[in-house]
Amino acid sequence: MKLATYKDGSRDGQLVVVSRDLASAHYATGIATRLQQVLDDWNFLSPQLEDLYTSLNHGRARHAFAFDPAQCMAPLPRAYQWADGSAFINHVELVRKARGAEVPDSFYTDPLMYQGGSDDFLGPQDPIVCADEAWGIDFEAEVAVVTGDVAMGSTPEQALEGIRLLMLANDVSLRNLIPNELAKGFGFFQSKPATAFSPVAVTPDELGDAWQGGRVHLALQSSWNGKKVGLCDAGEEMTFHFGQLIAHICKTRNVRAGSIVGSGTVSNKDWSRGYSCIAEKRAIETIEEGSPRTGFMKFGDTIRIEMKGRDGHSLFGAIEQKVMALAPEATA
Amino acid sequence: MKLATYKDGSRDGQLVVVSRDLASAHYATGIATRLQQVLDDWNFLSPQLEDLYTSLNHGRARHAFAFDPAQCMAPLPRAYQWADGSAFINHVELVRKARGAEVPDSFYTDPLMYQGGSDDFLGPQDPIVCADEAWGIDFEAEVAVVTGDVAMGSTPEQALEGIRLLMLANDVSLRNLIPNELAKGFGFFQSKPATAFSPVAVTPDELGDAWQGGRVHLALQSSWNGKKVGLCDAGEEMTFHFGQLIAHICKTRNVRAGSIVGSGTVSNKDWSRGYSCIAEKRAIETIEEGSPRTGFMKFGDTIRIEMKGRDGHSLFGAIEQKVMALAPEATA
Repeated sequence: MKLATYKDGSRDGQLVVVSRDLASAHYATGIATRLQQVLDDWNFLSPQLEDLYTSLNHGRARHAFAFDPAQCMAPLPRAYQWADGSAFINHVELVRKARGAEVPDSFYTDPLMYQGGSDDFLGPQDPIVCADEAWGIDFEAEVAVVTGDVAMGSTPEQALEGIRLLMLANDVSLRNLIPNELAKGFGFFQSKPATAFSPVAVTPDELGDAWQGGRVHLALQSSWNGKKVGLCDAGEEMTFHFGQLIAHICKTRNVRAGSIVGSGTVSNKDWSRGYSCIAEKRAIETIEEGSPRTGFMKFGDTIRIEMKGRDGHSLFGAIEQKVMALAPEATA
Repeated sequence: MKLATYKDGSRDGQLVVVSRDLASAHYATGIATRLQQVLDDWNFLSPQLEDLYTSLNHGRARHAFAFDPAQCMAPLPRAYQWADGSAFINHVELVRKARGAEVPDSFYTDPLMYQGGSDDFLGPQDPIVCADEAWGIDFEAEVAVVTGDVAMGSTPEQALEGIRLLMLANDVSLRNLIPNELAKGFGFFQSKPATAFSPVAVTPDELGDAWQGGRVHLALQSSWNGKKVGLCDAGEEMTFHFGQLIAHICKTRNVRAGSIVGSGTVSNKDWSRGYSCIAEKRAIETIEEGSPRTGFMKFGDTIRIEMKGRDGHSLFGAIEQKVMALAPEATA
């Protein structure tokens, strides 16, 4: 099943069911109006949405309309939790190697995660608004899951059972704000502005065999200013699977329905696959040439993030964003 | 105006208006059922709630009932953001002095903040459930505000205008998990389990003159196992006021309605006022005697956090929690 949230002027938008081929959609009115509502009462509401999805795929839904990703908010326009991992340890290795630092042994057994802001997500075509280009605007192409309730103390296997939906994320980072912020010791804060998500969220069954062992075994495509820069495998090299990431959160607390958990930048040891964030490209340049050549994003730059299924069709629709300057009147 | 959320078996509970003396309450049904709904549409809904509040205070509300804090969830049982500051720099100074570390100059001009989990808050009398006493269970008595929408780039003064409600918080910390976690560089995560909030949230006008310059000029009482351990002034020594904390968040993103922003542990230079978290008591012992004498909380321990107005009456009701072991079957 594929679900999206259409803009309607409200904070939470309108839930729509989207056909498998992303060609048509149907309002979920009569079943649920908001995605959080469905996650709060998944066992009761999701079968009804599945029925509508089946009708829609067979061309039998009576009020179907053409699906337009430009009308989408994030599937969850705001959420009660956004916890992002750094589960591709190759990314951590690269960034540390570039600055001459070691990766502690514990990083291979204990996931790195940070708590992100979740009150103001971006839709797949919303601009990345930033007050200052000099902050080092970077994209981070990731896979993310949306959970149901997962109780404190759950095992990674139990946590896997709590995964309801998958999405793509662009976890925008302001690279030049990170060093000072991490030096303060409390983790990322201003260096992580609003995160964007793919047009649709899909149930794991939509991925077929590509969803295995809590990992998505498909390539994540990133195109920067129209140029393909990354085609990174999101499966094999994910050091911690999503069940492990969720279990890491619920070691000391409950995880409640509608929590979003991210994989961190998808990253492969084979550099020929490209990169899912500019910081990694710059790390490679530093390792090879002594210093980075590639700059961060500028106002007007575009980023496109997409993932195709084994059938070659787009699974989640594309994140397609443009970087824009914060209008001066916004701060007046 | 004073607002609370009554348990009703649902995730968001039922909004009630509570009388100024905390003696009686009235369901807000007919106006709004959930507090988030009010924050989403504050200008339209809050005057209607104020009318009900006035009737209730005059004994004219027709279906009033005795207010029972034991029936309360957190005023916002789940929220889209929980960002906690460490705005009492004395706390940072003490903890650093105890371990022989300096406080960087920047800490006096650039607030320390961390992003907390907000999907599963505790009510004022809900137990603090923890799997392992050895994790170093500590309370942290704080003041917190709930915001409306505050746009990216807002100044501290603009941000102050966005404050809708005030509450007390117990930002429980697992002290023995902190060193390893901060060493990883991504900030607090497992070391911050669920946060508890006071029975009621109040509009700033309820504090009268005590709400000034974005600070609450009143004493915060903490009693551990029935013994008063802290009576710390929450105003004067708050290095960054709430407008500055909110402006720190919205430097790079919008802050949306229903965001909760905390002050961090309330802490005074005058040690005779006691402490609002055990870590601080241990820091003082280390400075004075070379090592800490006081242990952290044990299963069965209680913590009570309350603040009285200038009239001597409880403003927010009391947070009264007991520490409990996670039941083994919860993880089975």
